[in-house]
Amino acid sequence: MKDFTFQNPVRVHFGQLSCDRLVEELKQYGNRVLMTYGGGSIKKIGLYDKVVNALRDAGMELYELPGIEPNPRVDSVRRGAALCKEHGIDVLLSVGGGSTLDCTKWIAASACVEHDAWDFFDYEKWSPVERALPIVDILTLSATGSEMDSGGVISNPASSDKRGRLSPLLFPKVSFLDPSLTYSVSSYQTACGSADILSHLMEVYFSTGDTMYMLDTFIEGMMRTVVRYAPVAMREPENYEARANLMWTSSWAINGLVGADKPQAWSCHPMEHELSAVYDITHGLGLAILSPRWLTYCMSDATLPKMAQFGRNVFGTSADLPVREQALSAIDALSHFLFDTLGLTSTLSALHIDDTHFASMAAKAVLPYAGNLPGFKPLTAADVEAIYRMCL
Amino acid sequence: MKDFTFQNPVRVHFGQLSCDRLVEELKQYGNRVLMTYGGGSIKKIGLYDKVVNALRDAGMELYELPGIEPNPRVDSVRRGAALCKEHGIDVLLSVGGGSTLDCTKWIAASACVEHDAWDFFDYEKWSPVERALPIVDILTLSATGSEMDSGGVISNPASSDKRGRLSPLLFPKVSFLDPSLTYSVSSYQTACGSADILSHLMEVYFSTGDTMYMLDTFIEGMMRTVVRYAPVAMREPENYEARANLMWTSSWAINGLVGADKPQAWSCHPMEHELSAVYDITHGLGLAILSPRWLTYCMSDATLPKMAQFGRNVFGTSADLPVREQALSAIDALSHFLFDTLGLTSTLSALHIDDTHFASMAAKAVLPYAGNLPGFKPLTAADVEAIYRMCL
Repeated sequence: MKDFTFQNPVRVHFGQLSCDRLVEELKQYGNRVLMTYGGGSIKKIGLYDKVVNALRDAGMELYELPGIEPNPRVDSVRRGAALCKEHGIDVLLSVGGGSTLDCTKWIAASACVEHDAWDFFDYEKWSPVERALPIVDILTLSATGSEMDSGGVISNPASSDKRGRLSPLLFPKVSFLDPSLTYSVSSYQTACGSADILSHLMEVYFSTGDTMYMLDTFIEGMMRTVVRYAPVAMREPENYEARANLMWTSSWAINGLVGADKPQAWSCHPMEHELSAVYDITHGLGLAILSPRWLTYCMSDATLPKMAQFGRNVFGTSADLPVREQALSAIDALSHFLFDTLGLTSTLSALHIDDTHFASMAAKAVLPYAGNLPGFKPLTAADVEAIYRMCL
Repeated sequence: MKDFTFQNPVRVHFGQLSCDRLVEELKQYGNRVLMTYGGGSIKKIGLYDKVVNALRDAGMELYELPGIEPNPRVDSVRRGAALCKEHGIDVLLSVGGGSTLDCTKWIAASACVEHDAWDFFDYEKWSPVERALPIVDILTLSATGSEMDSGGVISNPASSDKRGRLSPLLFPKVSFLDPSLTYSVSSYQTACGSADILSHLMEVYFSTGDTMYMLDTFIEGMMRTVVRYAPVAMREPENYEARANLMWTSSWAINGLVGADKPQAWSCHPMEHELSAVYDITHGLGLAILSPRWLTYCMSDATLPKMAQFGRNVFGTSADLPVREQALSAIDALSHFLFDTLGLTSTLSALHIDDTHFASMAAKAVLPYAGNLPGFKPLTAADVEAIYRMCL
C-alpha cells in the first residue's frame, strides 16, 4: 500500500433539510448569494420556493443561474462567473445533483480570475486554481460524490472535450444531504446514479498492487449497499432507508478515503468521458455499459484474484471454483445487476452509437496519459478502441 | 437512523514519517513548540532524537513535557499549561499514544484560560472550551483514536475520577500516522490497544434502533480487520500490513463517522473509566474484561438480532441456529478472541480486584446520566454493579 495524506474538510448536514441552518451557514460568508440549479426539477418538488423564501426572509441578496446541463458545459461556467463578478457574489449555493455542483465549483474558481474558464482545462494552459468563492450545496441526486470531493467535470461541446480536475479549494464548505430530496428521482436516474457510485468504487478497488484490507472492507461494504438498496429505491422511491444509504455511499465512495492507499489510476471514467462528450449520454449509463467489458478485457493472472474477491464479497458468488471461473462469475453477476436488476441498456448499439468515432475517442481518452492509460490493466488507444467495440 | 452532522478536519499523513513535512506543518503555527511525551519509549526507538534534531535544525524553539502517564492525570495537564504560559508556546507536538495526546489536548485548552484544568471536568463548573492552542501529533500506538477525534480523557487521582469530554477545538490539526512507529509496541499493549479499538466499534454498533446498513458494513469491516490483524501484529511485530491496518482502523473507529447515525450511548467505557480510575489498570484490558459480560447482561428479544448479526458478520458464526443461540455463539467468539487469541486476562479477580469498591464505582458510572446509563440496554447502578460482579 502506498503512503497518503487524507483530509476532507466538508461539513455535512445529513437528514431533514433545515432552512435555518442553511441561512446560518451561508451568512458566514456574506449576504450576496448566487443560487445555481438545473432544469427545474427543484421547482417541481417545492425545494426552489422553500430555499428562495428562506433566503429572502433572512434578508439575503439572491441571484440565480438556472439551466445547468446534465453534462455541464463551459458556457454555463462562463455565465456563472460573469454573474459573480457583476454582482460581487459572496457565496455560491448549488441546488441539484452532481452536474450542477461540478459546474458551480468551476464558477467559484472562474469568478476569481480574469482568464477564460476553459483555461483551467486546456492541457497547454492548465491555469492554476489559486482562489475560489465558498460553495454550499443542497444535493438532490446520489451519484457523483461531488458533495464531498474537490473536483468537477466540465464539457466543451466546441471541441467535444469533457474534462475533470481537482483542487483543494473546490471542496464545498457545507453540503446538505437530505435523502428525502431524492424521492422524486426517476427509476432510470436512480439506476444511472447507482451505476456511477459503483463505478467510482470499482475504479479504486480494482488494483493489482497491495491494498489495505480495512479499506477494501469499506469498498465492498459500499458495493453491497448499492446492490442492496438501488433496487429498493427504484421500486419504492420514497423509501428513506434506501435513499439514505445510497446518498451517504455516494459521498464516501469518492471523497478521498477508500482509494487513498491505491494508485488511483482510473480507467472507465476516462473512457466514458469521451462517450458522453461526443454523444451526450448519461454518465452513469455509459459507465454501466463499459464496466463489465473493461473487466473482461483486463482478465489476466495478475487481475483474476481481485475479480474473484469482488464476486465473493459483493455478490456472494461461490469460492469453490478455480479463480478464472470465479472472476467470470463476478463479471456475470455485475452484468446481471446492471442490465437486469437496474434495467440499464446494455449496449452502445441500442443507443444508436456506432464505431464512427471510436478511434478518435480512444486517442483522446489516452491523451493526458501520454498514450498509455495506467490502471488495473494499462490501456493503449488500441485497447480502449477494442473495449468500445465490445460494447457495441 | 437519526439525522447528524459530520465534519472531521484532521489532516492525516499516513506512512513513513517525514521530518521535513513535520517542520512545515508546525511552522504554520509558529516557532515555539512544546513537545509532550510519556515514559521514554520514544527515546528507545530513536524517535525522540529524530524529532528533536529536525526541529532544532529548523531553528524552532523546543520545550518539553515528559512523563505523561498511561491514564493521564490532571497534574500533567496543569504542568503542561504552565509551561505554555511561561514560554508563550505557539503549537503543541504530542509524540506518543492516545494518553499523551489526550493530555496534550487538555493542555491546549488549559493554556488559554486562567482557571484550573479540572474545571473543564467538574460537573458543577464544566467550564466552556472557547480557545485552544493548535495540536500536531505523531502517533506511536494504535488504540484510542484520539488522533482523529476531538476528545480526551483525564484522571484525577485526588478524587478517583476519570472523565472525558469533547470539543471541536480539540481536533488535532495534523496527525502523523507511521505504522512502523508501532513496531516496538509489546504483544500485551498491542492486545490491549486492539481491545480498545474493538470496544469503540462495539459501543456504537450495538444499538437497538434503526441504523444505516452502509455504516454497519464499515463497522463490521473494521471489526474483521482487528480480528484478522491483531494476532498477526502480536506474532510478527514488524509486519507493516498488520500495523497499518490496525492504525487506520483505530482512527476510523471513533472519528465521528460510523456512529453518526446512532444514539451514541456508550456503556463499557463509562464502566471501565471507574475501574481504571480506582485501580489504574490498562484501559483496553478493562474493556476486554467487561465487554462479553456486558453483552451477556444485555441479552433480550430486542438485542439478540444485532448480537447474532455481529457473530455472523465478524466471526463467521453459523446462521443456522435460533437467534438466541446465535447471540451466545457471538459472545463466545468474542471471549475466545479476547482471552485466548489476544491472551488478555479474563477476570478482575486475576488482577486482584475484589468487590470492595463496586457499589461506589457503579454509582459514579451512572452519575452523569442521572442514575440511568442509556445504551444497548439502559443500566442503573445496580445493573452496573451486577456486571462488575460477573467480571470477578
